[in-house]
Amino acid sequence: MNTRIHEDNGQWMAGDGPHSGIAVTTRVRLARNLADRRFPTHPDQSERGETMDAIRAAIRSLPDGDQYVWHELEDEGPLDRRILMERHLISRELVDGQGPRAVAVNAPSSIAIMVNEEDHLRMQCLMSGLNVQEAFQRVNRLDDQLSERLAFAFDDHYGYLTSCPTNVGTGLRVSVMLHLPALVMTRHIEKVFRAVYEMRMAVRGFYGEGTEAYGELYQISNQITCGRSEQDIIDDMEAVIAAIIQYEEKARNELATSERSQLEDRVWRSWGLLRNARLMSSEEAMRHLSSLRLGVVMGVFNSVDLQEVQKLFLNTQPAHLQRLEGRELESGDRDVVRARYIRSELGAENN
Amino acid sequence: MNTRIHEDNGQWMAGDGPHSGIAVTTRVRLARNLADRRFPTHPDQSERGETMDAIRAAIRSLPDGDQYVWHELEDEGPLDRRILMERHLISRELVDGQGPRAVAVNAPSSIAIMVNEEDHLRMQCLMSGLNVQEAFQRVNRLDDQLSERLAFAFDDHYGYLTSCPTNVGTGLRVSVMLHLPALVMTRHIEKVFRAVYEMRMAVRGFYGEGTEAYGELYQISNQITCGRSEQDIIDDMEAVIAAIIQYEEKARNELATSERSQLEDRVWRSWGLLRNARLMSSEEAMRHLSSLRLGVVMGVFNSVDLQEVQKLFLNTQPAHLQRLEGRELESGDRDVVRARYIRSELGAENN
Repeated sequence: MNTRIHEDNGQWMAGDGPHSGIAVTTRVRLARNLADRRFPTHPDQSERGETMDAIRAAIRSLPDGDQYVWHELEDEGPLDRRILMERHLISRELVDGQGPRAVAVNAPSSIAIMVNEEDHLRMQCLMSGLNVQEAFQRVNRLDDQLSERLAFAFDDHYGYLTSCPTNVGTGLRVSVMLHLPALVMTRHIEKVFRAVYEMRMAVRGFYGEGTEAYGELYQISNQITCGRSEQDIIDDMEAVIAAIIQYEEKARNELATSERSQLEDRVWRSWGLLRNARLMSSEEAMRHLSSLRLGVVMGVFNSVDLQEVQKLFLNTQPAHLQRLEGRELESGDRDVVRARYIRSELGAENN
Repeated sequence: MNTRIHEDNGQWMAGDGPHSGIAVTTRVRLARNLADRRFPTHPDQSERGETMDAIRAAIRSLPDGDQYVWHELEDEGPLDRRILMERHLISRELVDGQGPRAVAVNAPSSIAIMVNEEDHLRMQCLMSGLNVQEAFQRVNRLDDQLSERLAFAFDDHYGYLTSCPTNVGTGLRVSVMLHLPALVMTRHIEKVFRAVYEMRMAVRGFYGEGTEAYGELYQISNQITCGRSEQDIIDDMEAVIAAIIQYEEKARNELATSERSQLEDRVWRSWGLLRNARLMSSEEAMRHLSSLRLGVVMGVFNSVDLQEVQKLFLNTQPAHLQRLEGRELESGDRDVVRARYIRSELGAENN
């Protein structure tokens, strides 16, 4: 296994950055394709290897090219592929895909460049907290540097061309992962999401499109990529995210005043279960970690800090857990090992 | 409030006696009526006061008559009435009834004589564990002594006459409260109960007829009181109870071997919730105390002992809790106080 991923826990779990009490991570990605090559989704897959090599060479030649770790997914074991996904460095499609495909990850794990996913290149910058502008600037700079080395498919009318029409134009997707437990508890979440959909933004689950929102973590992202400038898209996203954060803050204030006992009860019950259960699924762990995160941020609970909670969010996921344990585990055994790991991390006296 | 009840926790919570790992309490009661007076259920209630006084005088004149505490329910506050019920010394009917009615309770709370419930006299002996023979002997001796002082309604053909035909004959009801969590967990409980019904025995909830089985505690009792001798009824009951205890033991062995993790998980989760929740209903408390009881008896858990668990079963009931707190509480406030009391009893460090 690649220890360089293991030792570096990346941006995902930092638990800091602007508005980190609600905004867990910001992700900005650009989709690009090489002008002279078939899209990765083309039935003829013969070019994929060459495409990958060309992109690899371009990344290597970047001023900070030596900072990137190159993972060819065909060479990685299923556990390592899954670990990259659990860190939100690659998509589920890249994990489960076929043929030559790769990801280049820079040293602080803030930049990940997927190669031969749906598009030739999916460059993303992942940052802790709410950091749309800076994340965009970083990935935009990378885009500039790579465009000096690779000819991107670009149409004067449509903009950047992509496999799926939903990405044509800017190829820009901004995703902010928000922790919205108070909106869930006060049952306002659906109303907020309806407003988000009306703004033509999307709400996705924890692992992206088509996945569930474990731990009351939701990814909000733009749907429109075409006919508007990058800055307009970013401005809209920032406005929507600011509004949702405000709603969540209002809901938290509501809880703190009129439902304080219920709030404390929820947090302490989760703490009690995390420190005592002998079997725990990753979904259940995330639900209780969500309670702790809420309790810590709201100042009603201080037996752990936010960094510890974020670390557990990361390490209790199936692949991370198996790597910590040093072996592959059946699902039922994972629940035993996960419960034991959480107890030991949270200093439960009675193991 | 009557401190004499308060200081004496009675048989109910002892947690000892034969088969106390499964059999919590044995209750044997005899229904009797005075020959020369109308049944308490008669529309004309004018005699009730006199009946009560006559019975009181008879009890006073017993050799151990000074051991009895006399509670007239009309004089007791609602909380004290409810406390007597939570100790299984009086029925719900006596709590909610109207007019002159009373209970005489002897010092160790093992004998309780209800006056003017459905019958003029309901004499019961309550013992910890499985103790049908001894409980019957004690209540039978009391019956003998009282029959020397009071003329009981008796028919040569039917036997003792009672308000409700289901008690005619011996007037004997044997009830054993069994803790059957393993039969519930292994889903064999319904099958066992069907067999019990076929034996013409009844299964009742925690507070008797028509109540729910909180904390996986079930009362098994005879339905037939007529046409058979007391000893035959007792023998049948003992056989049925022995069989159910065997089934429960078998189910526990099953859990201990093939579902050990699930068992430990259940016990530790309950422990975690009891020590951390900020709101807890009495039903939920009983559910978790049921887990602890199972864990302690099966030797998979030793952070508390059976006596402590039994004490919590008793004291987390609404009236007992309010007395401990020294004031009447609304239902929502009770849940806060109950959670706090349990945490402090179980030595939770973070109050």
